[in-house]
Amino acid sequence: MTNLYVALIHHPVINKKGMVIGSAVTNMDLHDIARAGRTFGVRGYYVVTPYEDQAVLAGQIMDHWTRGAGGEVNPSRKEALERVRVVKTFEEACQGIEEERNQPVVKVATSARGYENSVSCARLKEELNGNASHVLVFGTAWGLAEELIDQCDYILDPIKGAGSYNHLSVRSAASIYLDRLING
Amino acid sequence: MTNLYVALIHHPVINKKGMVIGSAVTNMDLHDIARAGRTFGVRGYYVVTPYEDQAVLAGQIMDHWTRGAGGEVNPSRKEALERVRVVKTFEEACQGIEEERNQPVVKVATSARGYENSVSCARLKEELNGNASHVLVFGTAWGLAEELIDQCDYILDPIKGAGSYNHLSVRSAASIYLDRLING
Repeated sequence: MTNLYVALIHHPVINKKGMVIGSAVTNMDLHDIARAGRTFGVRGYYVVTPYEDQAVLAGQIMDHWTRGAGGEVNPSRKEALERVRVVKTFEEACQGIEEERNQPVVKVATSARGYENSVSCARLKEELNGNASHVLVFGTAWGLAEELIDQCDYILDPIKGAGSYNHLSVRSAASIYLDRLING
Repeated sequence: MTNLYVALIHHPVINKKGMVIGSAVTNMDLHDIARAGRTFGVRGYYVVTPYEDQAVLAGQIMDHWTRGAGGEVNPSRKEALERVRVVKTFEEACQGIEEERNQPVVKVATSARGYENSVSCARLKEELNGNASHVLVFGTAWGLAEELIDQCDYILDPIKGAGSYNHLSVRSAASIYLDRLING
């Protein structure tokens, strides 16, 4: 297992117009990122939503796979979803990580937008060889709000492709970043 | 743009027990792989299903985003989905690719299972510098059936993570392979 955690933020994120909003939890985000996280040795996957009804929905999905019929039919899905934690705020996610390993957590934002002070996956990969906990933070909707990025210690270079198009799903982006950080 | 195409197979694939089955088209597979394909300069994304009702469903989803209201609300989604083609068989996909560029297409299977004769992404990446068309083939459900893998020229090394767990979603796997082949 690595010293890496993942957090998926549903608030504060931005919409197409750049306004700060809260987004809905989607089933596929839970599954795909949990499976990628389990594949790449992520210690915990925090799903962050301040909305009670959304937290209940996420809890029901997880229950089905970790304690209900889903886990019996598909044990590998159970293994992946067992590392999911649903919390209300990013602060609560960081607190959970810090309590688990009794040390501060280094917060790493991701964004499809370019930032002058962003760091490369290669540099972060080196740092991950140490013992410090790191949390990789992903935004739903049109990405993390600035107020959340400002709380982070680093921001990772955006994933670039063959041109200027940069509209990967958060599921694709999380999978690619994890592959680069563990295998790259 | 690259010389790379993607095909997503819904038949013949296997189920958990290794039996050959046909799977259902899912909305998220269309979107996520189209968006990753567009990001990494894929020329065309073939969705392969022999089932008429599934082809109709896929067509309706695409219409909404390429000709309907979806494309107006989200033009970047339109750009991604415009490169999707729905066909009945893998042969038909290959024929389409061959006609488009008037040359044979090199067929590259992917699998989470290990094969002795699999090739690395680094080796395929070198080959992609040439002019030949290549199609990267992904299986839904529990992966491509052997009868389809047997039709391919290469099989790519499986994506390995931090341990033996290898249950990435096909959306995650496609995203990671494309990143490795274009950026790796």
